Amino acid sequence: MKKYKELNPSLRTIMTPGPVEVDPRVLRAMSFPILGQFDPEFTSLMNETMELVREVFQTNNQWSYPVDGTSRSGLEAVLVSIIQPGDKVLVPIYGRFGHLLVEIAERCGADVVHIETEWGGVFDPETVIEAIHEHKPGIVAMVHGETSTGQMQPLAEIGRTCRELDILLVVDAVATIGGVPVETDNWMLDAVMGGTQKCISVPSGMAPITYNDRIERKLLSRKRVERGLRDPANVELANDGQMIRSNYFDLSQIQDYWSAARLNHHTEATSMLYALHEGLRILLEEGLEARFLRHEHNARALVQGIKGMGLTLFGNEESKLTCVTCINIPEGIDGEAVRSRLLHDFGIEIASSFGPLKGKIWRIGTMGFSCNQKNVLHTLGALEAVLIREGYRLPAGEAVQAALDVYSVVNKEEISC
Amino acid sequence: MKKYKELNPSLRTIMTPGPVEVDPRVLRAMSFPILGQFDPEFTSLMNETMELVREVFQTNNQWSYPVDGTSRSGLEAVLVSIIQPGDKVLVPIYGRFGHLLVEIAERCGADVVHIETEWGGVFDPETVIEAIHEHKPGIVAMVHGETSTGQMQPLAEIGRTCRELDILLVVDAVATIGGVPVETDNWMLDAVMGGTQKCISVPSGMAPITYNDRIERKLLSRKRVERGLRDPANVELANDGQMIRSNYFDLSQIQDYWSAARLNHHTEATSMLYALHEGLRILLEEGLEARFLRHEHNARALVQGIKGMGLTLFGNEESKLTCVTCINIPEGIDGEAVRSRLLHDFGIEIASSFGPLKGKIWRIGTMGFSCNQKNVLHTLGALEAVLIREGYRLPAGEAVQAALDVYSVVNKEEISC
Repeated sequence: MKKYKELNPSLRTIMTPGPVEVDPRVLRAMSFPILGQFDPEFTSLMNETMELVREVFQTNNQWSYPVDGTSRSGLEAVLVSIIQPGDKVLVPIYGRFGHLLVEIAERCGADVVHIETEWGGVFDPETVIEAIHEHKPGIVAMVHGETSTGQMQPLAEIGRTCRELDILLVVDAVATIGGVPVETDNWMLDAVMGGTQKCISVPSGMAPITYNDRIERKLLSRKRVERGLRDPANVELANDGQMIRSNYFDLSQIQDYWSAARLNHHTEATSMLYALHEGLRILLEEGLEARFLRHEHNARALVQGIKGMGLTLFGNEESKLTCVTCINIPEGIDGEAVRSRLLHDFGIEIASSFGPLKGKIWRIGTMGFSCNQKNVLHTLGALEAVLIREGYRLPAGEAVQAALDVYSVVNKEEISC
Repeated sequence: MKKYKELNPSLRTIMTPGPVEVDPRVLRAMSFPILGQFDPEFTSLMNETMELVREVFQTNNQWSYPVDGTSRSGLEAVLVSIIQPGDKVLVPIYGRFGHLLVEIAERCGADVVHIETEWGGVFDPETVIEAIHEHKPGIVAMVHGETSTGQMQPLAEIGRTCRELDILLVVDAVATIGGVPVETDNWMLDAVMGGTQKCISVPSGMAPITYNDRIERKLLSRKRVERGLRDPANVELANDGQMIRSNYFDLSQIQDYWSAARLNHHTEATSMLYALHEGLRILLEEGLEARFLRHEHNARALVQGIKGMGLTLFGNEESKLTCVTCINIPEGIDGEAVRSRLLHDFGIEIASSFGPLKGKIWRIGTMGFSCNQKNVLHTLGALEAVLIREGYRLPAGEAVQAALDVYSVVNKEEISC
């Protein structure tokens, strides 16, 4: 039999838009021995995790808990649970992940209408509102922060319109949650889906979500208790909706598991829950405001450094997603060769992009635990060195100095606070 | 703001049919810093994990990898990827998890036919084969080991029949994989779905699966490349199947992510993959045969101990699932009070059951890392003490002695080998 070696992963500086580095305290949490899923200690940890999710999502929604799967499992869980075949869903697209929402909604049997704006910008909210009036969808699904293009869509006005018209607004906040404000209740978002491996900085594998009573009403109209758990004395619920097309993602069942009833569904992913609990605890200990500011400052330093070496940003800077910086790959430079040198010589990972942007831009994340001065300065220094090595002419030394200029102001501000 | 405390879970002896205790080496693996999903070190770890999955599932199937979700995510991924609405699926049911297969298949739009035998036994394979001839399904889905009733279904004859008739046989081996033989290729199983948190003894959160080229042909007939990743120059594939009704569980996409193409789908759950890799590595280091024998011996000791204290087993002993022992709760004893005392006084967790068996039986698991002499002896001693405390009359001291008798023979055999 082949002999397999013990794990011994290299230490990396991970500056992609996810997954990003993980706080050692979170890694340690995953190494605790597990509890059984119905152990009172574990169920109270589940309850506490719901409280933590509520705070991070800035909501009073009762239903605020993780789906056991990677980020897109949260997207699919919400969409499949509320979309009945034939429902009209409007998806405004400004990057790859808008297409993903279309893709998922179509597979749920929705009648999907989409509008698209050029990658690299976002929608004027009025454009979306006009499309809402024109198409009269039952659901609007859209992305808050597009990691594929580094853009962020303002949502408050769209939220208000949807509420007035009694339309459900569901938002993919995978890239933004924990890094920039996501004001679920203030912006009148009906469901918000997050991810762990970006600004929350917990390994991929859970999708914290939240949804309000407008969504819950829809779920309850479609609810079925699972075969094999049904109380024979209890007849089927008097609900008129169509059965949800997934068992694993049936939020009407999952919320029963997260409720005091603890009706068995899946077996909660223990160690991932430990990680999420610890990650959110650390996040709130830092404080949402302080964390958002940290993301802003490091992004600003990175941007100034990038410009300092003569590179240009891709996309509209006014709607730039704080935690993702997209850079045009200069003519004559092989983007993948640069990424490969960064990884192999410097142990730093940055990202390429998808679809029409493949080979045209690099993407650098400044997210969560990876988002710090040391990482930004190392990345700028390394990128400069690699570009010189690849024959690109640039003003050597400027990048790191430009970033240090930002930090010297920012750090002074912080001291004076 | 509320102050949340650091994690500090109690140490438990977990003797349920999952989740069970985790080897400290696996817990440690989860505490390693993460790698990016396309880091060559990580993708080679993915490839190695596929090899390990193949060995444990005793198969040569190329496609052998984990789905990112709890065990039932693997069940749903296989079923939703192969069932086209209207397809006839036969499900033979002998416990709760047979009902789950019906539930999932129905939600995939299948025309489900089921046969059921009394909980506590299994099917004579001939009965299933007759039902196959009668109903002529395209797919047969069944459970290998029913944790709800502690029974195990022989599959080889059913496998042979399905192959002859060109029917796909998909098997839920969540409870059995890694604890008792699951001979994917020999038994002619087309897809097998496992879980991590039982005999593999990795925390819940991944579902290793395997499937052969008969399944793959079905997937490819339904394949769509994801919107936003499609090469504009490339038109839609010339496939004639209906689109798979899930994006997250679309195995035709997930296998591309696990292939050399590495076409982006989800972000692989890094730390869970570390855990699975380490868990499977440890499992194969012990060796499949040695591991199966360990499961047999400990189960035998447990059974003799249970009988020694005057309790009776639930279900047919001839088809007993090695790693789950179901015990009739004696008349006059409150099963939940016993479980509660075991947990709170002794730190030992055993399980109750579901549906018609709720309140009637206890279930004790002897799975994976939890399956050892120390745990079995502790559990027997503690259960005896609790039963005495609850007023049950039993021959004090006999249980542990009966188990020790088994171990003295077994350990001698091992020394003489």
